[in-house]
Amino acid sequence: MTIKYELIKECKRTKARLGRLHTPHGIIETPVFMPVGTQATVKAMTPEELKDIGAEIILSNTYHLFLRPGEDLVKQAGGLHRFMNWERPILTDSGGFQVFSLGPLRKVGEDGVTFKSHLDGSTHFMPPERAIEIQMALGSDIIMAFDECAPYPSTWEYTEAALARTTRWAARCKEAHKREDQALFGIVQGGMYKDLRERSARELVEIGFPGYAIGGLSVGEPKDIMYEMLEYTVPLLPTDKPRYLMGVGSPDCLIEGVIRGVDMFDCVLPTRIARNGTAMTSHGKVVIKNADNTRDFRPLDEECTCYTCRNYSRAYLRHLFKAEEILGLRLMTIHNLHFLITLMKNVRQAIIEDNLPEYRNEFFVKYGYE
Amino acid sequence: MTIKYELIKECKRTKARLGRLHTPHGIIETPVFMPVGTQATVKAMTPEELKDIGAEIILSNTYHLFLRPGEDLVKQAGGLHRFMNWERPILTDSGGFQVFSLGPLRKVGEDGVTFKSHLDGSTHFMPPERAIEIQMALGSDIIMAFDECAPYPSTWEYTEAALARTTRWAARCKEAHKREDQALFGIVQGGMYKDLRERSARELVEIGFPGYAIGGLSVGEPKDIMYEMLEYTVPLLPTDKPRYLMGVGSPDCLIEGVIRGVDMFDCVLPTRIARNGTAMTSHGKVVIKNADNTRDFRPLDEECTCYTCRNYSRAYLRHLFKAEEILGLRLMTIHNLHFLITLMKNVRQAIIEDNLPEYRNEFFVKYGYE
Repeated sequence: MTIKYELIKECKRTKARLGRLHTPHGIIETPVFMPVGTQATVKAMTPEELKDIGAEIILSNTYHLFLRPGEDLVKQAGGLHRFMNWERPILTDSGGFQVFSLGPLRKVGEDGVTFKSHLDGSTHFMPPERAIEIQMALGSDIIMAFDECAPYPSTWEYTEAALARTTRWAARCKEAHKREDQALFGIVQGGMYKDLRERSARELVEIGFPGYAIGGLSVGEPKDIMYEMLEYTVPLLPTDKPRYLMGVGSPDCLIEGVIRGVDMFDCVLPTRIARNGTAMTSHGKVVIKNADNTRDFRPLDEECTCYTCRNYSRAYLRHLFKAEEILGLRLMTIHNLHFLITLMKNVRQAIIEDNLPEYRNEFFVKYGYE
Repeated sequence: MTIKYELIKECKRTKARLGRLHTPHGIIETPVFMPVGTQATVKAMTPEELKDIGAEIILSNTYHLFLRPGEDLVKQAGGLHRFMNWERPILTDSGGFQVFSLGPLRKVGEDGVTFKSHLDGSTHFMPPERAIEIQMALGSDIIMAFDECAPYPSTWEYTEAALARTTRWAARCKEAHKREDQALFGIVQGGMYKDLRERSARELVEIGFPGYAIGGLSVGEPKDIMYEMLEYTVPLLPTDKPRYLMGVGSPDCLIEGVIRGVDMFDCVLPTRIARNGTAMTSHGKVVIKNADNTRDFRPLDEECTCYTCRNYSRAYLRHLFKAEEILGLRLMTIHNLHFLITLMKNVRQAIIEDNLPEYRNEFFVKYGYE
């Protein structure tokens, strides 16, 4: 079984959609936020804790797992799900974004990318077929085509060349992909150019994929440009397939993305800022080390029902961070992931109740965005 | 209610004893190993995880909590139990050992110790009364007298002076202690000198405490000297009071300690070596980063029932350590604490079944001690 997207309801007042993604490892309610487990672990969390906070699918990174421990080892362990003790769905990216982020450490050719490992400097050649082979060995439920993500800003010419290659590579990825229990998504590129976004979407839809990602956004451009690109790009994608906006995880962008028709998101933001001591709460960000938390015996967020907020005070969390204790990183990570997953649950409920615009406005005011 | 020690059974073939320690926060089956939560958290663990592996009591450090976050803050939070979300018994040491470990950063006088904080270099004066005051504010179930622990080796003269002061301070601690819901233990010193151990035990028993710790052992001396000191010292203590050997946590020393009549132990060893990547298993130590674990898909210990061994392979644990992932520290800590707590459970069962010497011998052979 490959994946199947079931469209349940379209919002009448926005482009938001309520759906269900059926995968070999379970059903995902969309719109969904996917926590990131780069190295076969969502940093600081156990799989049980992820389930407790309602995570339905996680993302892991092909580039990192290829370098360490190697996809053959993961395959020998029985696949990524078994290796990391997570029996729910997994999406792996293709490694394209990571490889292109290496800057001077990589060289792009038509056949693929040559890059140096950030771990030991060893040289590797990665053609699109290899990116697919690795993901087949990992055994994730959803895998991504190997793409070239143009940085921001890039010229039209540079962006055009990158998207043209992304299309050719997407076709090669589809050709190379042989596992029927996995779904291969294409990635729409085209930077901040509407004509290129349109061309990329059209070419990929022509090749045909069970799902489409929107790449090359949230790469440093202003948010309103990202929203504009989304507004333009999403309607070019088929309504019977899921749309995944890569690398987006701030509360405002999640809501604005849903309003523009996105079904799936991932980002390291909630887990990364958690480990740096910043919590997302219904009243905006809380920097736990700030002196005003010293004797604040309230939870991080009085409206939150997560394990952290049920059991620990800001004063204790601040103490843990000052004392550099691992439990601090854990408790903040639990809270932030719970916050975003609950946010998406509320967004789905708002779609059901036809009041997503009101929900958005209330959330933004309370969070302090406006 | 203060604590009450209930002697259930004395081993016929060794000095081991089975008991129950009744405290305001619950009953502890003895002999018991106490995980250490220096800074109001057992490193890398939640209270729920501690309960899952059967921890009945934990130890926390007065010296550390006094410096950060300060005992007044902990008191304001509702006490240490509530602050750290641990409703089972807590024992706090007096800070004596930590202060004396500071070396040139402290000065001892009859009134107390002047020392510099390891955190910020600030100077503090700690008389015995203050150590008790702090522990009363923390609200632990069992608190310790402020003692002077002589290093190893020390001359008879030095050791004698330290023990004499420890006795005088113990009397002052008892005088200063006012909480009826806490038990204050005296600490027997005397280094490696039998006459001094005898004198210390006699003087402390004369003052009278609801429990006695044996301090100044496991400070660098050979194990057989420690065992000899224990053999000599324990019989000098009343049978109706618990005996606590401070700072001991290797499997062999726990078993040998129980055989010599010790009821309580604590040590950072299992949690510290866990974070360094070393597991205690029924077949001895496993260094997880070793290359032979690369493709070893068995659990750390095939006889172990802990969360880690039920769900993760050595290969995955090795990957987590190579990738410096927090989950690796967590899983190894869970395993090592589970190992020692299960060891003590087995030791208690062996006392019940009158086969502690056989249990000891089998364990030692399997672990690789002999």
